[in-house]
Amino acid sequence: MGKLLDSIDSPQDLKVLSLEELNQLADEIRQLLIRFCRRHGGHLGSNLATIEPIIALHYVFDMPHDHLIFDVSHQAYTHKILTGRRRAYTDPEHHEDLSGFTSPKESPYDDFMLGHTGTSIGLACGMAAQRDATGGKANIIAFIGDGSLSSGPAFEGLNWAAEQGGNLIIVVNDNEMSIAENHGGLYKSLAALRASGGRSSDNPFRALGLDYRYVEKGNRIEDLIEAFRQVKDTDHPVVVHIHTRKGLGLGQGSQRQIGPTSITQSDGQTSHMTPLPDLPAEGPVEANHWQDGLDSLGRLPNSRKTYGRMAMQALEARFPQEPGLVVISPATPLSNGIDPDFRQRAGNHYRDVGIAESHAIAYAAGIAKAGGTPVVATSATFFQRAYDQIEQEMALNGSAVTLLVFSTGVAKTDATHSGAADMVMMRGIPGLTCLAPTSGTEFLDMLAWATGPARQPVVIRVPGERTLATERAGKPIATSDPTTGGEPWDHYRILQEGKTVALLALGDALPLGRDLADSLERSTGLKPTLVDPHRYDSLDEQTLDTLTGSHSLVVTIEDGQLDGGWGQAVAAYYGPSQVHTLAFGAAKEFNDRVPKTTLLERYGMTVPAMTRAISDALTDEASWI
Amino acid sequence: MGKLLDSIDSPQDLKVLSLEELNQLADEIRQLLIRFCRRHGGHLGSNLATIEPIIALHYVFDMPHDHLIFDVSHQAYTHKILTGRRRAYTDPEHHEDLSGFTSPKESPYDDFMLGHTGTSIGLACGMAAQRDATGGKANIIAFIGDGSLSSGPAFEGLNWAAEQGGNLIIVVNDNEMSIAENHGGLYKSLAALRASGGRSSDNPFRALGLDYRYVEKGNRIEDLIEAFRQVKDTDHPVVVHIHTRKGLGLGQGSQRQIGPTSITQSDGQTSHMTPLPDLPAEGPVEANHWQDGLDSLGRLPNSRKTYGRMAMQALEARFPQEPGLVVISPATPLSNGIDPDFRQRAGNHYRDVGIAESHAIAYAAGIAKAGGTPVVATSATFFQRAYDQIEQEMALNGSAVTLLVFSTGVAKTDATHSGAADMVMMRGIPGLTCLAPTSGTEFLDMLAWATGPARQPVVIRVPGERTLATERAGKPIATSDPTTGGEPWDHYRILQEGKTVALLALGDALPLGRDLADSLERSTGLKPTLVDPHRYDSLDEQTLDTLTGSHSLVVTIEDGQLDGGWGQAVAAYYGPSQVHTLAFGAAKEFNDRVPKTTLLERYGMTVPAMTRAISDALTDEASWI
Repeated sequence: MGKLLDSIDSPQDLKVLSLEELNQLADEIRQLLIRFCRRHGGHLGSNLATIEPIIALHYVFDMPHDHLIFDVSHQAYTHKILTGRRRAYTDPEHHEDLSGFTSPKESPYDDFMLGHTGTSIGLACGMAAQRDATGGKANIIAFIGDGSLSSGPAFEGLNWAAEQGGNLIIVVNDNEMSIAENHGGLYKSLAALRASGGRSSDNPFRALGLDYRYVEKGNRIEDLIEAFRQVKDTDHPVVVHIHTRKGLGLGQGSQRQIGPTSITQSDGQTSHMTPLPDLPAEGPVEANHWQDGLDSLGRLPNSRKTYGRMAMQALEARFPQEPGLVVISPATPLSNGIDPDFRQRAGNHYRDVGIAESHAIAYAAGIAKAGGTPVVATSATFFQRAYDQIEQEMALNGSAVTLLVFSTGVAKTDATHSGAADMVMMRGIPGLTCLAPTSGTEFLDMLAWATGPARQPVVIRVPGERTLATERAGKPIATSDPTTGGEPWDHYRILQEGKTVALLALGDALPLGRDLADSLERSTGLKPTLVDPHRYDSLDEQTLDTLTGSHSLVVTIEDGQLDGGWGQAVAAYYGPSQVHTLAFGAAKEFNDRVPKTTLLERYGMTVPAMTRAISDALTDEASWI
Repeated sequence: MGKLLDSIDSPQDLKVLSLEELNQLADEIRQLLIRFCRRHGGHLGSNLATIEPIIALHYVFDMPHDHLIFDVSHQAYTHKILTGRRRAYTDPEHHEDLSGFTSPKESPYDDFMLGHTGTSIGLACGMAAQRDATGGKANIIAFIGDGSLSSGPAFEGLNWAAEQGGNLIIVVNDNEMSIAENHGGLYKSLAALRASGGRSSDNPFRALGLDYRYVEKGNRIEDLIEAFRQVKDTDHPVVVHIHTRKGLGLGQGSQRQIGPTSITQSDGQTSHMTPLPDLPAEGPVEANHWQDGLDSLGRLPNSRKTYGRMAMQALEARFPQEPGLVVISPATPLSNGIDPDFRQRAGNHYRDVGIAESHAIAYAAGIAKAGGTPVVATSATFFQRAYDQIEQEMALNGSAVTLLVFSTGVAKTDATHSGAADMVMMRGIPGLTCLAPTSGTEFLDMLAWATGPARQPVVIRVPGERTLATERAGKPIATSDPTTGGEPWDHYRILQEGKTVALLALGDALPLGRDLADSLERSTGLKPTLVDPHRYDSLDEQTLDTLTGSHSLVVTIEDGQLDGGWGQAVAAYYGPSQVHTLAFGAAKEFNDRVPKTTLLERYGMTVPAMTRAISDALTDEASWI
């Protein structure tokens, strides 16, 4: 550890440092972040760009009296290090202590738990409004950039800021790139502003009625301190546009003097990749979006990447014959197996619209209306940003758009990135066919149907880790019957005929259902019926009616939130009948990086707990007769 | 009818007209729209501003080979009149034939069914992309304005358009005002562009990389024709900013020469109200948002206005003592009883953020974090535009924001404005307390709690027409017990103790439940238990358990979508037990202006149908024993 960093327990400790010491501190933090991300993983590139800006902000302003709100909050590592949380970065034993995002549970210096894009300005406007209503004096600062600025909510916030007036400082961290790439005309204007030292005429901030300042050397602490001092206690909203370098301090390229400290940096505005040859990663880290930790070395690709690549491969084969077949990704493509090589080969068959999910769906609906075949791929948690467009432009208009929903189910995630409620959200919208494939083969069959004969809105929940594990173990449960490959999957598939108890295990819960079936047979001698519903927007009432004859208990298992979900619909269907039901799924709650095994135990979704629950239910039934 | 209009059966018929005839046509349409809206109601002001632009567009372009996409599509009446649908405007017998919005079901000239804001540019980008992928030549035109431009999706679309390139024409209809008022810095820039004849430097369109043209006389057909001819077949995206007059042809004010036809218009950029003394309306029509029809004369205010006014009155009384108590409305305040007088008196206690629902929620979360008490009021259908912010900034962050959800339930609405699925959406999100008051008194008690001691995220579904009717008839069902006014409504209220059958009737379905209880007692002699659950995010398991003893059938009734709703959660709760359930609610489907009685019959939600269904269920039960 560097000596200086050891002495920083709060931002107060910064304020007595000389410029030379501040620069030394930045250097220490830079080395620390590289070490930390190498081992633990993290948003390395973006955080390397924000070390000096965050030091300067804490030097000039008085947090937490003043308020610093990080958009998305993935680039706040230096903020955490400076606000009493450095041990989580310095001590490998404590690497898991902190969220990768800001969290009021961790620190009074964090106002919000954030992980989605574009709301920092709106939140800051709100805090400023309340300050003004109560005669307060605090500076309110929104820190936004790294691709966030082009999202709709960010624009709505910028537009409102000018109207509201009063103290509000919007730091636009312009690192020349988004998580993957920047997209849109806004970024051309930012480039022109950079090229002109902030003087070019087409200024998107002034065009929204905002005051504006430019800092060319956005990683030079003295320039930042000067700029922030000038806007401190401003009586009106002002944008401070700072030009930083993503991945600063890493990789090859030219040497450039950034402030008093000489550091190596990647060069060239056209390069969106920073090679990190000595760090584990799948080839170059994509614009330093995410640096995998050492523990990922040698690990097989996860289900997102595996099935995502499979899907892209299947679609790519059709590109030459289908000019309108287009994959749309609102940023973060690599996480879903949409590799740079594929994107390169795909040409106009691939579009990254940036972090603009609402636009991604409207855009796809337009393509579909004109006869094209759009596939929109992103994480479950990000589709919720386009709820209105999924409901209106896609579902209501019957647009032939296919959604591939990645990163779903009960898992250890940041609370902001949960994939537990996507089925509840999607199935609540009329007009969507929602499919949950239970094998890679079926996934591809469904994708072929959705992008082929269907010509209707389809949602496909990409299979998860359980399915991948069974396939890797050579024990796949069910594959699509090739003869039914063109069908809309409106009939459940009965995998095992039994009696008394029927297990309906949806999507990635099917392997769990199979294990449960085996366990029940072992422990009770009873062979249950096992059903793969593979569709969750509607019920196969015919099969449900058939089950009534020989089953007294129907058990549903889904890898997602129980309340509002498909299992409750099954229960309601059987409500007036003699069939009893038992529904397994996740509680309706927020969880922040809780291990998956802990969650499954909490929800009673382990084989022993489910076996017990079913046995108890059967005992109760017997007692009523 | 004017002679010219009689001869226009398609846009082809326009193309042979002289300029003088086009102006005459505009005049005929203007008179027709005033007559039509006076009788039938409609978006009068905005449509009066778009007559000449739409005539010029159809004159210059070749729809439907070229494509004209109206944002929100509320200002497309002239488009409908020119595309073979004029009879619905000329013949009172056919006034109800058409949607107030564009609809592909009505005409090949309409590409989309739209009613929400900001997606026209994204849709147009998609159609243009597919055209370019397949070697097409059509002009793709997005027509946006009247307050839509400041919504996030519109910005995302503008930002993408520049990147995409190729033919795309974005007509910005700048009528100087939004549905109620314009808000945000963008509108200052538009004003500066108007004042400078399109030459002011802070140009938000150029700042997003778009080509730009300005038409000062946006209601002068020859100027429009010239401008549109210049951009026809453009090879790159271009914004045509046209300056029009909302409500042109109505009301007092100066006479101004607009093209060859002299028409009266309201004057003054500061006036956001156009008085319409000879038209029925509640005082002046609010920026001509909506003109009530003659049939509304003498009608009592609906439930939205009644309960909305009640809420505003209750909050206003607290303003002097509570500087942080703020009502936020993302446009359309008047529809929810947030009257101009109230807004005037409220000062900074009222904020209209424009059509920017995502921002409204983020803004409210910021106010709450800083200690304020924000109340966000809008229609059910518009809250879905802020799904992500409700889930992340409000619920996950535990922000003390109160949502007042207006215009809910099974009703005759445009498909784009349904209020049937709000409960399903809200209850799917963890961390929200969702309340459904069953009287005005309880509504105010809940509002007082939510904006007082609660300090947590609360959603209140404003009571609807059934509740209002019972209160007006002097037969209110349930009022809050004053002694429990401070409670979180986590216990169901038992209104009538009975046996065998328990009726749980949620919110505005309670009057229906009471009628059903009476009917059941009359027809079967059985006195059912009647329960007011008044909360729909969670279950009162204690009361549900109590019912088990003396009831074999629990019936749920909710005024909204069944699938994913509260009734299914009740069914799942009873799933493993001996209690049977029967759930009544709306189907998961889209309905476009289907009468409420038709819907209720279709859903079996009439007293006779429900009585029959319950009797049948009891008979089935008896047969199993």
